Amino acid sequence: MPGTVVDAPGAGALSGHQRTVDWVEHPDHPAVELIDQTALPDVERLLRLETVEAVVDAIQRLAVRGAPAIGVAGGLGVALAVRTVPDPADLDAAILALRNARPTAVNLARAVDRVAGVVAAGADAALAEALAIRDEEIASSDSMAAYGIDLIGALCGPAPRLLTHCNTGGLATVTGGTALGVVFALHRAGRLGGVVASETRPLLQGARLTTWELARAGVPFRLAVDGAGPYLIARGEIDAVIIGADRICANGDVVNKIGSYAHALGAARAGVPFVVVAPESTVDPATATGADVEIEDRSDAEVVGFGAVRSAPAGVVTANPAFDVTPADLVTAVVTDRRVVRFAAGETWDDVPLGPLRSLL
Amino acid sequence: MPGTVVDAPGAGALSGHQRTVDWVEHPDHPAVELIDQTALPDVERLLRLETVEAVVDAIQRLAVRGAPAIGVAGGLGVALAVRTVPDPADLDAAILALRNARPTAVNLARAVDRVAGVVAAGADAALAEALAIRDEEIASSDSMAAYGIDLIGALCGPAPRLLTHCNTGGLATVTGGTALGVVFALHRAGRLGGVVASETRPLLQGARLTTWELARAGVPFRLAVDGAGPYLIARGEIDAVIIGADRICANGDVVNKIGSYAHALGAARAGVPFVVVAPESTVDPATATGADVEIEDRSDAEVVGFGAVRSAPAGVVTANPAFDVTPADLVTAVVTDRRVVRFAAGETWDDVPLGPLRSLL
Repeated sequence: MPGTVVDAPGAGALSGHQRTVDWVEHPDHPAVELIDQTALPDVERLLRLETVEAVVDAIQRLAVRGAPAIGVAGGLGVALAVRTVPDPADLDAAILALRNARPTAVNLARAVDRVAGVVAAGADAALAEALAIRDEEIASSDSMAAYGIDLIGALCGPAPRLLTHCNTGGLATVTGGTALGVVFALHRAGRLGGVVASETRPLLQGARLTTWELARAGVPFRLAVDGAGPYLIARGEIDAVIIGADRICANGDVVNKIGSYAHALGAARAGVPFVVVAPESTVDPATATGADVEIEDRSDAEVVGFGAVRSAPAGVVTANPAFDVTPADLVTAVVTDRRVVRFAAGETWDDVPLGPLRSLL
Repeated sequence: MPGTVVDAPGAGALSGHQRTVDWVEHPDHPAVELIDQTALPDVERLLRLETVEAVVDAIQRLAVRGAPAIGVAGGLGVALAVRTVPDPADLDAAILALRNARPTAVNLARAVDRVAGVVAAGADAALAEALAIRDEEIASSDSMAAYGIDLIGALCGPAPRLLTHCNTGGLATVTGGTALGVVFALHRAGRLGGVVASETRPLLQGARLTTWELARAGVPFRLAVDGAGPYLIARGEIDAVIIGADRICANGDVVNKIGSYAHALGAARAGVPFVVVAPESTVDPATATGADVEIEDRSDAEVVGFGAVRSAPAGVVTANPAFDVTPADLVTAVVTDRRVVRFAAGETWDDVPLGPLRSLL
């Protein structure tokens, strides 16, 4: 495993205010530090990444995941490259490796491009740009929570019972979160009626990461298998589904963790709102529809071998798309850090101008 | 673990023609023998159950599962009770325990009642009735395969690519199967374009049992997480969804393994047939709709602790319904051993009289 474990491993090793990914400055070895999400919830540890290769590896094996978080990791990775890669030709290759580490979330390519755009101005400028992306994502989480609790209140009344998929909390961003940030804000406001976390096979980001975050925040929750969500909605246990996104297209199609689309179908059938929360950095007007997004197909081993489950005969072939596409007509609203766009009602990006960043903090 | 392991454990210990559940006669210790489905695919072994308590336990912990198979186990259990429970008052209690071992599949209560109805005629009559149920389920599987391949051919053309959920093969019946029996029949006829098995969390009946049966039969397949099914359908990889049922109501609502409903929503959205295969013994005209069926909620431990996965913090609370309800309007057709009823097109049971039992063997 590239990268050095720098925090004592074990349960409770991380503080509740730990940033998911950040820059750490030492005179002779700058580094990207991040929470190792492959080890949660059993082991809480930080990884120190001192090379671009280590950052690429961490992104690819999902030590850091979540569209905003991998964007920040990619941006910091470019700043690290400027400091650690002496040859300009190698630098270009390093930046390209970061940009291509994963294909689906627009945040990664966008953040890499943004920091790469100021590399000519020097290492300090590159780092400043990467840190700006980090700070913008922190502010975005705060603003999404503000927009989100207002929308959920308007759609669902005073004590909504929510269902969320995958992990969209502080672990998916830097602090705060997207969809789960709204859940936390409702809880802090005393207005959360309940939350169901779906486990999110194959890698169990819901069962491992969302439950970990909810438990740390003292939010009561229930865990459900992915196949149960639409039925829990149908039998009246859920007032809204709230999820994040890896990319939102020009037409409002939402690319998100595999299993999202099934929940959208369940919400639509039951007449329950399906709400997507993601920063403007995840909106991609340059991609027309979900059909134009490269959906990452991941390995057979993820399905068959995760954890210690040997759930199928060895050598089995899988269909393992990491993401799916929820068509815009099933998306009641997209909540960003700057606006709310109601796609199922026919609104488009152009109908809703960017509003102010808001804050609950 | 009540029950005695009677076959040498290990991979390959069972023959391909082993009945899932059967009666074994010894002069002084009659028994129900069944394949231990909790041990598959890693260990192939038979359990010999010589008491009613052992049969109840095997049904409750899913050593035997699948609506037809637990019906047969329950009927054989009553025959075993007549032979092993001397006091008539205890016999009634034993029969009630069998009948209530699991609530959702109608086959169990129906088979228990049927054998209990001839108990007054003596042990031989009870056993004969239980063996008749067993033999009828074997013939039913054969007939469903015949009706099923004709319907799939009519709906999907010459080389359908199918998606199936949970396990509905010989392990869910006695031999043959319901939905998976149709898949096997298409394969034997050289007319199967492909099959995706969904893993079926939490207990992974698809990943453990369906893949085991498909591999033994030499059928190429892909395994997918439950959340992926609707997206695989949406992106054009699936020509029909084919599943079994635990109970089919008077109005055509289908109660089946959790996750079935999500696949039905995905099929409907994509305009792909959603076909349910189950014997007439699973049809329950006495229950009006799916809302009238008791859906079994199972333990938190199934979700959190199955296999060696520790996927969530200890002590987590789950929502773990074992079944869901697919409304009749999403059901393209129900295939039984005696007829095909097209509910989504407005047909009802009354529109289609029982036809002959058919055979492919």
